[in-house]
Amino acid sequence: MFNEPHLRSLPGSAAAPATAMRPLRVGMIGIGTVGGGTWAVLQRNQTLIAARAGRGIEIVAVAARNLERAAAVLQDAPGVELTRDPLRVATHPEVDVLVEVAGGTGPALEWVLAAIAHGKHVVTANKALLAVHGQTVFAAAQRQGVAVAYEGAVAVSLPIIKALREGLTANRIEWVAGIINGTSNFILTRMREDGVDFAAALAEAQALGYAEADPAFDVDGVDAAHKASLLAANAFGMPVRFDQAQVEGIRTLQALDVECARQLGFRVKLLGIARRQAEGVELRVHPAFVPAQHLLAQVDGSMNAVMVKGDASGVTMYYGAGAGAEPTASAVIADLVDVARLPAGTVAAQQRVPHLGFHPHAVDEQLAVLPRAAVHTRHYLRVPVHQAPQIEAVGAWLTAQQVPVQRMELANEKTLPACGTPQVLVLTDAVRQATVDLAVHALAAHPAVAGPVVALRVEMLEG
Amino acid sequence: MFNEPHLRSLPGSAAAPATAMRPLRVGMIGIGTVGGGTWAVLQRNQTLIAARAGRGIEIVAVAARNLERAAAVLQDAPGVELTRDPLRVATHPEVDVLVEVAGGTGPALEWVLAAIAHGKHVVTANKALLAVHGQTVFAAAQRQGVAVAYEGAVAVSLPIIKALREGLTANRIEWVAGIINGTSNFILTRMREDGVDFAAALAEAQALGYAEADPAFDVDGVDAAHKASLLAANAFGMPVRFDQAQVEGIRTLQALDVECARQLGFRVKLLGIARRQAEGVELRVHPAFVPAQHLLAQVDGSMNAVMVKGDASGVTMYYGAGAGAEPTASAVIADLVDVARLPAGTVAAQQRVPHLGFHPHAVDEQLAVLPRAAVHTRHYLRVPVHQAPQIEAVGAWLTAQQVPVQRMELANEKTLPACGTPQVLVLTDAVRQATVDLAVHALAAHPAVAGPVVALRVEMLEG
Repeated sequence: MFNEPHLRSLPGSAAAPATAMRPLRVGMIGIGTVGGGTWAVLQRNQTLIAARAGRGIEIVAVAARNLERAAAVLQDAPGVELTRDPLRVATHPEVDVLVEVAGGTGPALEWVLAAIAHGKHVVTANKALLAVHGQTVFAAAQRQGVAVAYEGAVAVSLPIIKALREGLTANRIEWVAGIINGTSNFILTRMREDGVDFAAALAEAQALGYAEADPAFDVDGVDAAHKASLLAANAFGMPVRFDQAQVEGIRTLQALDVECARQLGFRVKLLGIARRQAEGVELRVHPAFVPAQHLLAQVDGSMNAVMVKGDASGVTMYYGAGAGAEPTASAVIADLVDVARLPAGTVAAQQRVPHLGFHPHAVDEQLAVLPRAAVHTRHYLRVPVHQAPQIEAVGAWLTAQQVPVQRMELANEKTLPACGTPQVLVLTDAVRQATVDLAVHALAAHPAVAGPVVALRVEMLEG
Repeated sequence: MFNEPHLRSLPGSAAAPATAMRPLRVGMIGIGTVGGGTWAVLQRNQTLIAARAGRGIEIVAVAARNLERAAAVLQDAPGVELTRDPLRVATHPEVDVLVEVAGGTGPALEWVLAAIAHGKHVVTANKALLAVHGQTVFAAAQRQGVAVAYEGAVAVSLPIIKALREGLTANRIEWVAGIINGTSNFILTRMREDGVDFAAALAEAQALGYAEADPAFDVDGVDAAHKASLLAANAFGMPVRFDQAQVEGIRTLQALDVECARQLGFRVKLLGIARRQAEGVELRVHPAFVPAQHLLAQVDGSMNAVMVKGDASGVTMYYGAGAGAEPTASAVIADLVDVARLPAGTVAAQQRVPHLGFHPHAVDEQLAVLPRAAVHTRHYLRVPVHQAPQIEAVGAWLTAQQVPVQRMELANEKTLPACGTPQVLVLTDAVRQATVDLAVHALAAHPAVAGPVVALRVEMLEG
């Protein structure tokens, strides 16, 4: 087929200058932070974006709750139709592609499905929507032969979805691990830098606008789990399994453990991890010890980074802002440029980039998310004891419980916050979570133990 | 156009399963390290790659100098046509896409142009070819309506060309800076870690296979300049201007300056830099001081990393292996998957990803590479003086010469290699290169100065 040059001389194909193509017409639902940023960047860089896309990209209709506010944002654009009705935009006859940046799940699902049913492509930054309803959305889009692009849903400024779906397609992916919630990373960075506790760091994040008044979504790991489940689907050819992800946040993390991490040569990061094992996939979000010299450990403040291990590529890493009006706009507009470059109408489904990186017939519906008990990784344990010499007893007891102790020492009382009793710090070799959970539970009854045992996972993330 | 659902029911379009498409047929010139790696990964991961690409990818013809060696590599493949004639593969009637991984410029140009003339897409990892003959190759491909993909030409394992051409299309790129030569980075890492000089670190790199017997291309910055000129073209919409790049390598870098960098809180890295200025583009490769805490300064050994500053995205970074059989294969195969996903035949030129990120009509042929004298950046100066107190005279003299001194101190003689006389270390604010060059030249005649003055650029690479 590629050897039929006469096909290239069909009208409108090879020779026509890019300016001859009509612009891509965009309808947008939501003109808040992300929508406003998208509008601003499309205006500011319109010539450059058209030079890259091969044609202009124009917003022709916008749905907003507050029309006055929307009109203020759009002030230079008399040609844009403004409405309170999202479905009007989703089904608008003049719209080629819907940009959904209003957030939420229920109504957003209705709008997105309506747009797809009307043959429109969809660009969204709505990770909650895709994590919860992704299978419905992608199946509908597949039937209609339209694209659903969502680079803005994960670690916005860095094109990690593109890297997985297109850049690393040669690889059997072994694992993906990322710092994919900026709010949590900001809080953890402040805890490490100043030794403050979670509540103080959260208050600072809220004062600076890095955390919402209700921070649950971010600090309890839900937002990161939305993103991790999308990464896992694209990495392994599995459905979006947010409902099966194991999710722990940073709310109960103690300043003492952040300090103990430092003593042992680690930093605490909230990681989203998807790892292929022989029997299934680990899909989990939780705070973890990462070696202090590791590149991921250097990612501070509200920045995001995702590391991917492929069997051919080795380890690659992607770093950048994970939130913000213009970084998200950067992702939304890149998706629009991808859509603008799509051939219209008659492209076979197998000639588009598949929504989740693998063509639907090849997605392994049976690929299971491993239960918590089956996760296999290193651990950090902190065991308060009545007297320092009891470290020996703790070590012997852990070994008897099949916990492979790799290193054990006492917390340095000179540099650590006062904690009443000596603290035994343990690093284990890789071990099943079930074994650790049992041991931690049983340790409470050990006569040497003076208080609650803390256990956190240790991720070496080696190439 | 997107609203015409009837178009999607044309034969062969929406509903056909991916398996119905015939495989993409590949001809490969070169079956050495990269070619062998590409063959191995295509074999190992063929099911997975087809699941992503929507169809199989098959090597049907291979050209090699040594047929016996080639046959040994391809042993499991009786169906592959093996020949000593690269042009046979480039023009083979069964071949859809040519993979050129033989290297070199003259003959490779002939092969690639022959393939393009025969309507074949081209995938190459040959940065020298594209840096020197890119304009010729891309213009021919544009006329023929075929893709020329080259992710393997720059920082192989990490999809930086894809990031610039597709992932960051919303952005006005301000600068790109990268560690894009693994050999040099390995040598610099060894110099810093063990305080050895360039010759010893090079010998170690050669013994370990990280450097060629003739290391000139790598250590003199030529290879990095090839890559930087491709990055600049994709970032700024300019032609490939390798011929105008300013290129300095690390051969004359002294162990003493690596140590002085440490004292001042920096690390020395060989950077490829492309920076948009009001009057033109800086395009330069040279060793530079980078702040020791900077993420790029953490990139050690033979690893590569590229940092990009976009006006909307902010700073993003891409990290991974920059060489090796399978990391390069990862890039070559990703390019093949992109080609496999292309619609055949009738796609308008403006609906493919443009070769250099911008559609040809929008490339600014006039965008000039700034001459060395006009480059504007910070500097490090090391000035040997007869006596320590002469630091005052040096400082006053530099200020009189319009060199903006930001910080000045004596090298610590206890921690640095013996160097005979006191060494004045200077960090400047941003200043035109011409001013620094004049001052360094004139300093030689200053009565306080006891030897040659060393000047290196300082890059803060701030977000």
